[in-house]
Amino acid sequence: MTTPSTQDLLARRERLLGAGVATFYENPVHIVRGEGVWLYDADGRRYLDLYNNVPCVGHAHPRVVEAMQRQTETLNVHSRYLHEGILDYAEHLTSLHADHITTAVFTCSGTEANEVAILMARAATGGRGLIYTQAAYHGNSTEVRKLSRLRGDNEPEFRSIPVPQRYRPIEDGLDDSALTDAYLSRLQAEIDGFAADGIPFAGMMACSILANEGLPDIPPGFMGRAADLVREAGGVFIADEVQAGFARSGNWWGYETTGVTPDIVSMGKPMGNGLPLAGVVASREMVDTFRQRTRYFNTFASSPLQAAVGQAVLDVIEDEGLVESVADVGGYLIDNLRSLQESCEPMSDVRGHGLFIGMEWVKDRESKEPDPEGAEVIVNRLRDTGFLMGRAGEHGNVLKVRPPLVLKREQADMFLEAFETAIAEPT
Amino acid sequence: MTTPSTQDLLARRERLLGAGVATFYENPVHIVRGEGVWLYDADGRRYLDLYNNVPCVGHAHPRVVEAMQRQTETLNVHSRYLHEGILDYAEHLTSLHADHITTAVFTCSGTEANEVAILMARAATGGRGLIYTQAAYHGNSTEVRKLSRLRGDNEPEFRSIPVPQRYRPIEDGLDDSALTDAYLSRLQAEIDGFAADGIPFAGMMACSILANEGLPDIPPGFMGRAADLVREAGGVFIADEVQAGFARSGNWWGYETTGVTPDIVSMGKPMGNGLPLAGVVASREMVDTFRQRTRYFNTFASSPLQAAVGQAVLDVIEDEGLVESVADVGGYLIDNLRSLQESCEPMSDVRGHGLFIGMEWVKDRESKEPDPEGAEVIVNRLRDTGFLMGRAGEHGNVLKVRPPLVLKREQADMFLEAFETAIAEPT
Repeated sequence: MTTPSTQDLLARRERLLGAGVATFYENPVHIVRGEGVWLYDADGRRYLDLYNNVPCVGHAHPRVVEAMQRQTETLNVHSRYLHEGILDYAEHLTSLHADHITTAVFTCSGTEANEVAILMARAATGGRGLIYTQAAYHGNSTEVRKLSRLRGDNEPEFRSIPVPQRYRPIEDGLDDSALTDAYLSRLQAEIDGFAADGIPFAGMMACSILANEGLPDIPPGFMGRAADLVREAGGVFIADEVQAGFARSGNWWGYETTGVTPDIVSMGKPMGNGLPLAGVVASREMVDTFRQRTRYFNTFASSPLQAAVGQAVLDVIEDEGLVESVADVGGYLIDNLRSLQESCEPMSDVRGHGLFIGMEWVKDRESKEPDPEGAEVIVNRLRDTGFLMGRAGEHGNVLKVRPPLVLKREQADMFLEAFETAIAEPT
Repeated sequence: MTTPSTQDLLARRERLLGAGVATFYENPVHIVRGEGVWLYDADGRRYLDLYNNVPCVGHAHPRVVEAMQRQTETLNVHSRYLHEGILDYAEHLTSLHADHITTAVFTCSGTEANEVAILMARAATGGRGLIYTQAAYHGNSTEVRKLSRLRGDNEPEFRSIPVPQRYRPIEDGLDDSALTDAYLSRLQAEIDGFAADGIPFAGMMACSILANEGLPDIPPGFMGRAADLVREAGGVFIADEVQAGFARSGNWWGYETTGVTPDIVSMGKPMGNGLPLAGVVASREMVDTFRQRTRYFNTFASSPLQAAVGQAVLDVIEDEGLVESVADVGGYLIDNLRSLQESCEPMSDVRGHGLFIGMEWVKDRESKEPDPEGAEVIVNRLRDTGFLMGRAGEHGNVLKVRPPLVLKREQADMFLEAFETAIAEPT
């Protein structure tokens, strides 16, 4: 069997999946196999995966493969029967969260989790209005799409606030404390705006590390005080942990990086290491109200299969000490990237949490003018030398490093060497 | 290890998943293993599964188990890379549909598929207004929930029509042709209502066999002519095949039972035999417009894992001749149930398609007063003798028989014997 050309594959893809199904990289990668932090293409070429957060414990982790096989050959049914697997999993998962979080609702995707979070916030508060951060992305459904700048502009029940950050602050010349206050006053203005429009307030949703916003350095105290303002106005604070959760930040949950205590937590991507598995956790009272109002049922969710695979992922994170390892390797990476930054003019800011690192790529450090094209050149150079990374952020100019959690220091070194070469030439 | 009591499991379930997560049967079943059409509880007791449509080719089908294992240990990534598996699957799946259907959008659940179908219908038409059948259920998200009577009442963009049927017709004394016209005039009235309200029309969504509505005998020609009316008004006709599709009706697709040609088809439940896999197929033009307007991406969907498992399901349906087998065993069941009906006063109507059969349970054949409590007694009697079935319909009084597609005649005989005993005593 001959390997089809990239052009043939792209043409066939457009015919069968439609035009506009984007691929990564100028020269898209035809991946056929994965193992740990490594991906292999159809020509047998090896790539270090510095992008994928879904296979969080590594591609094809044997314990996940085994859990999936064992459960699939034993039983996989919906949740209208009694099954202990999903109860064991819910117990383990909620035990990893703040004390008031005791109860779970499982779904198949992060979008479905955020649908549940919205329904739950509205059921719990009786409100409708929701606040989100600009440049956020929380999912692809009609309602969840409204929690993003592009879709939410003319939606009276959805209002946005600027991305809280130090690098491109909302106002120049403020110290940390004044900057935090400035962002909080924007939040209060939107809460007041709902009141002025007669729209009862339901709450605020934010990714705990503002991943799609480009992992900004959030002004100290902002998240916790934002949650306070939201609750004072009768709303609930929803932490979207779809990208931030499951050890990614070097903590179990992204919300630990800011110290905020969320009322509702949504989770997704890494939760099943590739099996569609997502969900929401909250207090028993909040989940009860949600269930009573919506009679929510999700055919594929809360299944023995989801439970077995989700449990295997938690076990691997614990048994392989990944929270600590991510903090260590992530810290090592960020220190070394900051050293490279010193002699690289366009790389104007290096920041992040654990194994989720963002690097601003700008035309000029003074003006901070974003350079998404330059960032894309770097991404493609690295792809061509066998390192897969990506871009993020409000302006698309933030280089994104987000490998499987099992990345080791020696693999980080391989990346650092390739990265140093890639940024040595002008873009 | 001792088996926990049902009461302990229910209490633990309420604590971890919240109050109101319904179970089936007065005495819920604690299932631990499945194989083919059989389920086994924690005490080793065997049940004939006459309910589950998700494990369509049977519980733990070895070819599905093998496909899942092989792909999981090889590669499972999102769709921003090139991979042939999803293209092969999309090609096979679309080839099973009408000729104009050539292009696919994959999702993780039927809800997500119907979200895509709504976004696609609105993108293709520029309209907003959608019509659905009363007592329908199309999914659990904020937008899709509006396509059901309970949630759609005060939603200006959603209007419903009565369930088209012969058993409880909208008007007495009409012949078939006049009855079809009567239902079509209700549809036209709702289309006109949108126009009167200044809401541009987007289309109509209907389950192809009106499963949640209780599998009514649809007046002849209704669906095809409804689609014509919808298209004449600038809308598109969406066939929800989440329950009706994949050989369930003794045809590949439920829409073949009425001869309607849909513009958009959504699919779900049986598609991955338990792996979260769902999707939408339509013309290339319609999918292109949808993709261009929404830039839809779904992290877990279109993955090599979904492709491998979806492909295995199609292969089993074809290699085991399940379309023909379902038509045969389904026909055999319905004939025998109609014989039993003759001497069973409350069982006033037996109808269905293939291995999806509904039986009206009424207090009185003359008045047709629904008897959901009586139907529940029958369901529980059968559960207690080792046969798992359910209830459906607008009034909850339709006994529902919907086994895995691999049910054989000898297993149908076992059910018929138990069913005869269960209905022999008054409820």
